[in-house]
Amino acid sequence: MSASLDPKRTIADLKELRSLTADESGAQRVAFTAVWAKTREWLTAKLAKLPVETHIDAAGNLWATLRGESTRELLIGGHMDSVPNGGWLDGCLNVLAGLEILRRIAAQTGGRPPVTVRLVDWADEEGARFGKSLFGSSACGGTLDMDEARALVDRDGIALPDALEAQGIAFERVKESGVELARAAAYLELHIEQGPVLLDLDLPLGVVLGTCGVERHAITFRGQAAHSGSTPMNRRKDAFLAAAKMCPEIYRIAERHGGVCTIGSCKTEPGIVTSVAAECRITLDQRHLDAAALAAMHAEAREAAARFAAEGGVSVEWERLWHIEPIPFDPDLIELCDGAILETCGVSHRLPSGPLHDAAEVARAGVPTVMMFVQSLLGISHNKIEDTKEEHIEMAVAAFDRLADRTMAWIVSRREGVSAG
Amino acid sequence: MSASLDPKRTIADLKELRSLTADESGAQRVAFTAVWAKTREWLTAKLAKLPVETHIDAAGNLWATLRGESTRELLIGGHMDSVPNGGWLDGCLNVLAGLEILRRIAAQTGGRPPVTVRLVDWADEEGARFGKSLFGSSACGGTLDMDEARALVDRDGIALPDALEAQGIAFERVKESGVELARAAAYLELHIEQGPVLLDLDLPLGVVLGTCGVERHAITFRGQAAHSGSTPMNRRKDAFLAAAKMCPEIYRIAERHGGVCTIGSCKTEPGIVTSVAAECRITLDQRHLDAAALAAMHAEAREAAARFAAEGGVSVEWERLWHIEPIPFDPDLIELCDGAILETCGVSHRLPSGPLHDAAEVARAGVPTVMMFVQSLLGISHNKIEDTKEEHIEMAVAAFDRLADRTMAWIVSRREGVSAG
Repeated sequence: MSASLDPKRTIADLKELRSLTADESGAQRVAFTAVWAKTREWLTAKLAKLPVETHIDAAGNLWATLRGESTRELLIGGHMDSVPNGGWLDGCLNVLAGLEILRRIAAQTGGRPPVTVRLVDWADEEGARFGKSLFGSSACGGTLDMDEARALVDRDGIALPDALEAQGIAFERVKESGVELARAAAYLELHIEQGPVLLDLDLPLGVVLGTCGVERHAITFRGQAAHSGSTPMNRRKDAFLAAAKMCPEIYRIAERHGGVCTIGSCKTEPGIVTSVAAECRITLDQRHLDAAALAAMHAEAREAAARFAAEGGVSVEWERLWHIEPIPFDPDLIELCDGAILETCGVSHRLPSGPLHDAAEVARAGVPTVMMFVQSLLGISHNKIEDTKEEHIEMAVAAFDRLADRTMAWIVSRREGVSAG
Repeated sequence: MSASLDPKRTIADLKELRSLTADESGAQRVAFTAVWAKTREWLTAKLAKLPVETHIDAAGNLWATLRGESTRELLIGGHMDSVPNGGWLDGCLNVLAGLEILRRIAAQTGGRPPVTVRLVDWADEEGARFGKSLFGSSACGGTLDMDEARALVDRDGIALPDALEAQGIAFERVKESGVELARAAAYLELHIEQGPVLLDLDLPLGVVLGTCGVERHAITFRGQAAHSGSTPMNRRKDAFLAAAKMCPEIYRIAERHGGVCTIGSCKTEPGIVTSVAAECRITLDQRHLDAAALAAMHAEAREAAARFAAEGGVSVEWERLWHIEPIPFDPDLIELCDGAILETCGVSHRLPSGPLHDAAEVARAGVPTVMMFVQSLLGISHNKIEDTKEEHIEMAVAAFDRLADRTMAWIVSRREGVSAG
């Protein structure tokens, strides 16, 4: 069935893109820059060889549509933009695997597949310039906070609306891109894992169960500045001591629930060598695929912080920085993805995604969604050393193509089911 | 014998000084400023009423000399300078108690005491402007690092040598002030405790055994930045985790040895909410009066840091920021001070000083030295809320006067001892 699929061509495309858009520090396809525009031109030229219609939507997302027997749509998505000094696979692997699958389907069906198949290149997934990720997909999915986005400025003081206008995008109308999802029946996304789970298990591919919910807070402990030489230990109100106790504790909390917890930032005031810390601010990022487990992890962190504060005679204050519910993927599509992986490489694995992806925005918009992960060699992304074995990339393209075929059949069967019901 | 001593006059002098040199934020007698110059004029006018000779030495220290039968000298020292927004007692209590004792001795001996008595107002004890404390006393005592001091600049970019020149002080000659100690037989200093030890014991006065040795280091843990969402807990190389474990540990180390340990500053890199900390730098300040105990505390901190680094798969690097040996005070003078306190208020206590004082520089220069502490009401200094009960200030002046008398007798007896030997 996939006789004309050529995964090696995807690798060749990835290398061609790298030679065009990376320098010695890594990929430089930051959204809304000249390199990104060049990337889009390159992609559009590739698409022009296929029987597809392409257009840019109201949020700057690029769509290529291969019309099928049914107007119900299979969507395959990714993002060509990268962080500065990024890797050669993050984001563009999805788009170029999707391109190869479009080629295969177009060739095999004489340009007329059973359902409409669309490839989308989301705009500014990384948020590298304005500090806000998932721009294009959240505008399209409808969750973009317009007031927050309107106020975003880059390092040079340029506002996001002005930067968009320079790209021919009217900021106040970006949510009109939502019409693109009107006939979407399924959304598929292939991505490099960006973590070490598949590497540790020595597995090439995995099914993603959903994206984790996130509780993100700043925690400020306030004690009393005191001279490091004249203040006995038992008289101190040491804000750093309470904050420091939180770190081993969040490892215990994460272990109990099977989630992840991170204290990434710690700041002390006055922050001088001769004074007990009067104030200590840490950030806490907690993630879990299960909403109840996430809530329990958060409650236990609050309880621990209150206990450490009381032990040390300091106060504690929480500030929520961000929050998102877990976004589970579609159970049917998870089974299809699992089957496609099993058939391709004989073994599969199910795992949640800690990082968010455009797929989460599409799923929140009500489109049945699933993602496939391919092993990351060092478990590292957003870095030029990001890599995946070529044989694993080839397996990923083959399995993702099988998933696309099964999903088309699923869409057709669901439609029949609806008609029959 | 001390019939003419009037401790209430010292309190009146302190209040007069406060009204002249403090604003609503606290004392503003920062060295080498206009307020400090006004302070010196005010003090000089007070001294002019006594049969003393006054002069400014090569390092800017102010000396008032009451010549006695012997050229051997009893020195009483303090500092009129304060930190910005400082308290009403730190430093100036010593000088003004010394002034009252000079008045008493001059009146009682007809201006001719058995030994020469000198009051010194050290220049720039606090180091508030140039970040280097004990300037005047370390220049006089001979330990001032000329190369380091030459390079000091204030916030406005003014170099210390230039600031001194504006005060009529030639930087390259400041160590010539060392001649002032040529005939010193004893040095006494009264100071507010700046800590809560006497407060907790409900005691007005204490004998200071010496100033603690200090080991001051920066400790940098280096791990691996990793995404907070995609990196399982057991795969992390978390620099903050290792650093955080140090804080409860230094409390245990300090408790075992009876010293003090402080982590006052903690900085994380990249220091963002979505990344495991790749690097964490903390400062560690350790103090003990006993050199062997200080060395043991330091060795145990190194062992703990190496252990936590190994547990977490991170590296650790130490950088020594500063070090000073413990400076024990003179055993004879400690006994005399203890006796003077006992006679004044019936109970005494011996304690080390965590903070350094000018007395440490004089002791290092080989002059027999002792300090007396008076209770600090909140255990807090370098702040406008610094305070001591007036009855305790009166007791302190009375006990310090007794100590001065006993020390003069001790100087005379030692001389006789030498002659007889």
